[in-house]
Amino acid sequence: MIIVATKDITTEQIDHIRERVEAIGLRTHVSRGESRTIIGCIGDEARLAHLPLLSIPGIDSVHPVMRPYKLAARDFAADRTSTVRVGNRTFGGTVCPVAAGPCSVEGGGMMAETGRAVAGAGASLLRGGAFKPRTSPYSFDGLKEDGLRILAEVREQTGLPIVTEVLDPRDAELVAGYADMLQVGARNMQNFALLREVGQLQRPVLLKRGMSATLKDFLLAAEYIMSRGNMQVVLCERGIRTFGGEMRNTFDLAAIPWLKMETHLPVIADPSHAGGRRDLVAPLSFAALAAGADGLIVEVHPDPASALSDGDQSLTFGEFADLMGGLGVFAEAAGRTL
Amino acid sequence: MIIVATKDITTEQIDHIRERVEAIGLRTHVSRGESRTIIGCIGDEARLAHLPLLSIPGIDSVHPVMRPYKLAARDFAADRTSTVRVGNRTFGGTVCPVAAGPCSVEGGGMMAETGRAVAGAGASLLRGGAFKPRTSPYSFDGLKEDGLRILAEVREQTGLPIVTEVLDPRDAELVAGYADMLQVGARNMQNFALLREVGQLQRPVLLKRGMSATLKDFLLAAEYIMSRGNMQVVLCERGIRTFGGEMRNTFDLAAIPWLKMETHLPVIADPSHAGGRRDLVAPLSFAALAAGADGLIVEVHPDPASALSDGDQSLTFGEFADLMGGLGVFAEAAGRTL
Amino acid sequence: MIIVATKDITTEQIDHIRERVEAIGLRTHVSRGESRTIIGCIGDEARLAHLPLLSIPGIDSVHPVMRPYKLAARDFAADRTSTVRVGNRTFGGTVCPVAAGPCSVEGGGMMAETGRAVAGAGASLLRGGAFKPRTSPYSFDGLKEDGLRILAEVREQTGLPIVTEVLDPRDAELVAGYADMLQVGARNMQNFALLREVGQLQRPVLLKRGMSATLKDFLLAAEYIMSRGNMQVVLCERGIRTFGGEMRNTFDLAAIPWLKMETHLPVIADPSHAGGRRDLVAPLSFAALAAGADGLIVEVHPDPASALSDGDQSLTFGEFADLMGGLGVFAEAAGRTL
Amino acid sequence: MIIVATKDITTEQIDHIRERVEAIGLRTHVSRGESRTIIGCIGDEARLAHLPLLSIPGIDSVHPVMRPYKLAARDFAADRTSTVRVGNRTFGGTVCPVAAGPCSVEGGGMMAETGRAVAGAGASLLRGGAFKPRTSPYSFDGLKEDGLRILAEVREQTGLPIVTEVLDPRDAELVAGYADMLQVGARNMQNFALLREVGQLQRPVLLKRGMSATLKDFLLAAEYIMSRGNMQVVLCERGIRTFGGEMRNTFDLAAIPWLKMETHLPVIADPSHAGGRRDLVAPLSFAALAAGADGLIVEVHPDPASALSDGDQSLTFGEFADLMGGLGVFAEAAGRTL
Repeated sequence: MIIVATKDITTEQIDHIRERVEAIGLRTHVSRGESRTIIGCIGDEARLAHLPLLSIPGIDSVHPVMRPYKLAARDFAADRTSTVRVGNRTFGGTVCPVAAGPCSVEGGGMMAETGRAVAGAGASLLRGGAFKPRTSPYSFDGLKEDGLRILAEVREQTGLPIVTEVLDPRDAELVAGYADMLQVGARNMQNFALLREVGQLQRPVLLKRGMSATLKDFLLAAEYIMSRGNMQVVLCERGIRTFGGEMRNTFDLAAIPWLKMETHLPVIADPSHAGGRRDLVAPLSFAALAAGADGLIVEVHPDPASALSDGDQSLTFGEFADLMGGLGVFAEAAGRTL
Repeated sequence: MIIVATKDITTEQIDHIRERVEAIGLRTHVSRGESRTIIGCIGDEARLAHLPLLSIPGIDSVHPVMRPYKLAARDFAADRTSTVRVGNRTFGGTVCPVAAGPCSVEGGGMMAETGRAVAGAGASLLRGGAFKPRTSPYSFDGLKEDGLRILAEVREQTGLPIVTEVLDPRDAELVAGYADMLQVGARNMQNFALLREVGQLQRPVLLKRGMSATLKDFLLAAEYIMSRGNMQVVLCERGIRTFGGEMRNTFDLAAIPWLKMETHLPVIADPSHAGGRRDLVAPLSFAALAAGADGLIVEVHPDPASALSDGDQSLTFGEFADLMGGLGVFAEAAGRTL
Repeated sequence: MIIVATKDITTEQIDHIRERVEAIGLRTHVSRGESRTIIGCIGDEARLAHLPLLSIPGIDSVHPVMRPYKLAARDFAADRTSTVRVGNRTFGGTVCPVAAGPCSVEGGGMMAETGRAVAGAGASLLRGGAFKPRTSPYSFDGLKEDGLRILAEVREQTGLPIVTEVLDPRDAELVAGYADMLQVGARNMQNFALLREVGQLQRPVLLKRGMSATLKDFLLAAEYIMSRGNMQVVLCERGIRTFGGEMRNTFDLAAIPWLKMETHLPVIADPSHAGGRRDLVAPLSFAALAAGADGLIVEVHPDPASALSDGDQSLTFGEFADLMGGLGVFAEAAGRTL
Repeated sequence: MIIVATKDITTEQIDHIRERVEAIGLRTHVSRGESRTIIGCIGDEARLAHLPLLSIPGIDSVHPVMRPYKLAARDFAADRTSTVRVGNRTFGGTVCPVAAGPCSVEGGGMMAETGRAVAGAGASLLRGGAFKPRTSPYSFDGLKEDGLRILAEVREQTGLPIVTEVLDPRDAELVAGYADMLQVGARNMQNFALLREVGQLQRPVLLKRGMSATLKDFLLAAEYIMSRGNMQVVLCERGIRTFGGEMRNTFDLAAIPWLKMETHLPVIADPSHAGGRRDLVAPLSFAALAAGADGLIVEVHPDPASALSDGDQSLTFGEFADLMGGLGVFAEAAGRTL
């Protein structure tokens, strides 16, 4: 249930409404925007039937929410769009941040080198995996806390906020101790224990779409995080699994505008995993911004041929600089900047 | 097998090479470009082993083609890109043509009205189905030859070349008698009798990707048409069938740049069928041009609510004008014009 | 709309009802069963609202049909199940016919040999392609009418009715002149021109499910054939296209019992195309009968290693004899015989 | 690398071989069968090149393993098939165990009632979820430890071993303290933290296939568990996500015989989730046994209409008794018993 407040509602009136709603067992979430204020009510809507909502001062109108997700629904944000701040960068505004870096943190040297290169080319955040999900138990699975330390050092050197993946609910606090943004990967999109854990931390979350997740599943996964109190979720389309065999995944570009109409959360794209090929990164990035994406996350490696993972889809420093150079006109065409 | 000729090869030398190759049972196809000339050899490559190709005057180098498609392979075109001319419009050049019109030709009045509106908004071609493939035998299946006559009349009035679908090999000549471009629909992408038939006509073909066609299947379908002598094929990505339930199809945007790297044929997108929703047409169109598409085909109807088919995804005249207005900057960002 | 007649309805009464219904623009189809008689009405149900149906003598009850398919719906058959007779064999009864033979008719000798072998092992029909749909224009596409003549000769020798594919509506009569059953292949399941053509012939049709056809699409394709007057349709599940890469297709076994609950038409399985591997044919065949399939169609070749098509999935004569030997207990467990 | 030992190899010889192999950094796993003994070597095969294996007494032959999974590969088991014992029941032998029970443990009464009913009908294990993965954060997610206690009580009453799901690596020991078999659900098939955790416990694991997992992904998930030392893994096919909209999932029946050829691990089927419909459970169960499944897991509820989850696909007690009654002949046809 969404309660839309009158323009001139006071803080006291809001508090009164919250008390009344919470007294009958629902939870509330307040979103104040420029033109309206929303009080979202989460829980069994049937109970609200007995509350004379429209006679309470400050309430303009009341709307049931039929969607299975509430906090993630577009109307739950007063301005129908929300921003997520990571370090000194913002997702969901007029600037489209680009996170860049290697699939895995392989060592201090390559990370420092990569950090300098991507910062120089205009990246907004540094990505790199310290805990790596791998399909095979015999593949390299990351440097763990050593990797996190390296990331933090490169943040010092470059000023770039850090986004890195958390795989295990037991590691969530550890990772949050180093990272500016926690990534929940595609394979863990329905790892509900992990979603709840990152929902209890006050760290922005980059939530990647599962390989066979419908968009409704995707928003419900965001809802898990949000329902624990962490509203700072950025969604990431990274390709889905279909019959198509020519590319690693099928980039579901239309998910971007669909999500933008359905949720207030920022939506970015991962052209590296979507295509799985270096030469597809640029056209997919251009298209994502054209379709309204709020940013990108791109794999960059000093020497893709020797990368411990995802070498085929990683850009060299030169290719990344070219990408950033080419992106500008598309961001501008979409009314944004990089 | 691809024979790359020397720069200064003469027509007599080319003819001599073709005679030698055809004498051992292969067919040839010559493509003359600005910087090189290609003689493509189609058939059993093993036979060429006995021909002393490199000692024939005018031959620079010889390359086996490992791909299952030959004529559609990028290297088969001297300039690695080809153009297809439809009336006074060209697919594959710096201008990106937009074909627009209703799903079905419903009558003379609505077509005349639509033709004027889309021409006024900057469309390059008029689309409209006279023969309609319908999942149910009880749905409206088109005005047939009456519909073709109406299309021809509106071409007279507006100057727009016409693209319309052919469903049955027995109708191919009839449709080609009216239309400037023959559409082969998604459900018929592997209707080999139909592909062969349109391959024998000298009319440009708009070939739509099948719902579950891999990109290799798609290029082999083009190859069917080309192997009969008709090289004027334009490919169209229109969405594939996946688990995704929120949209009509899954728009496989990455297919566009993948195809552009793999074939010399022009590639366009159909944002109307891909998304199946009016409000997705604009973002999908912007993204398609950003990813390198050579044009678009869009459904437009004077009154979508009363359309006999595909009303949900058809734009009104106003929405189409807005789309054309918005497309310009993206075409420009991609180094093209509308 | 389905009209259920009283038990003692007379032929005159049926004729009267049909006249009344047809007079308002609908078509009728009568199915007489042991316990009830059905008069199916096809067309715009709204018109029936003005007909006082329940006051017409002989009518017991009237039921609207909400499904998009009418003639194929289970309730349209008086006994909710129908049989299709091909030569002296029957699909849909207590016996489960097995059609066997090579993918392609490659010559008279191999067909005669195969015919004898599969007849000896207990096959009920002989399969073999004279017109072959091939993904590549350069692959062997069948012996055409010569292949049909060979099939007819082997029918003479073995007594086995023949099932063979028709690809082009222009060949339908020719193929029907030789074959006992016309196959419409997966790629042509929505080739509506072809469906209509075989709908006008009085030959049983084996309709294979399209690679990305939903079960509703599948039944609507059957409806195309039936709506032209040919009720002798047998459905065949042959695998669908999914992300699964280990096998040629994904055998949608559950489609068999689903279809048996939804339509009165017989349903068989093609374990050869579904799995694409010789060693999967037996377990898939056993499972199909266990799930209620009314028969099988299996690829058998005298020398699979030298087959011009589908060698990987063809059984040798010995393997086919083993399969038939193993099938018996599963048919029996399912309350059927071979 | 697989080392096949001579028939008369001694324990001392085996120990010597293991020491040599482990000394160069690989791990070993010994499987003793009736006709041969296998010493599996896990790790970097290149290192073994320097070991003169064939000259070590007791070694008959040495085979590299090209598959990405080693411990799960069929050849790693001396008899090419392994059994997993759960309480007094065995998966992988001639008896096919059927696990039955509700989706969720809803209370003590309903579980006791269900336990008696399914035991009476011939079930071998009791299933029931105490920790439930739910797509929505607002759905009932289980009674947690209370649910486990209830399960343990019903085990006392009925003698049925218990299988129940674990969602969070932090709960693995807790669940293992009550359950005879730990289920890893479809959504967690690539939750690598969880896989590692259950790999360290000595409790049999029921591993369900992920919704978009290839069969290779599935076996690599089993490998994660096995590589931590827990070899007692039973695989479960439960349907995959495809375009098909008529059923909850697409039951990939062919996965069963494919897996039986590829791994030594037992393979069972979950017809309840695969079809998502009560009336499909019986035909899918029959087909699974016919295709070689080693058992089933079936949802049964005292009153499906009031179930807190999965009511549509749960059998009543009577339906379950009918299922067990019908299964016998199919088990027998497959050379097994219930």
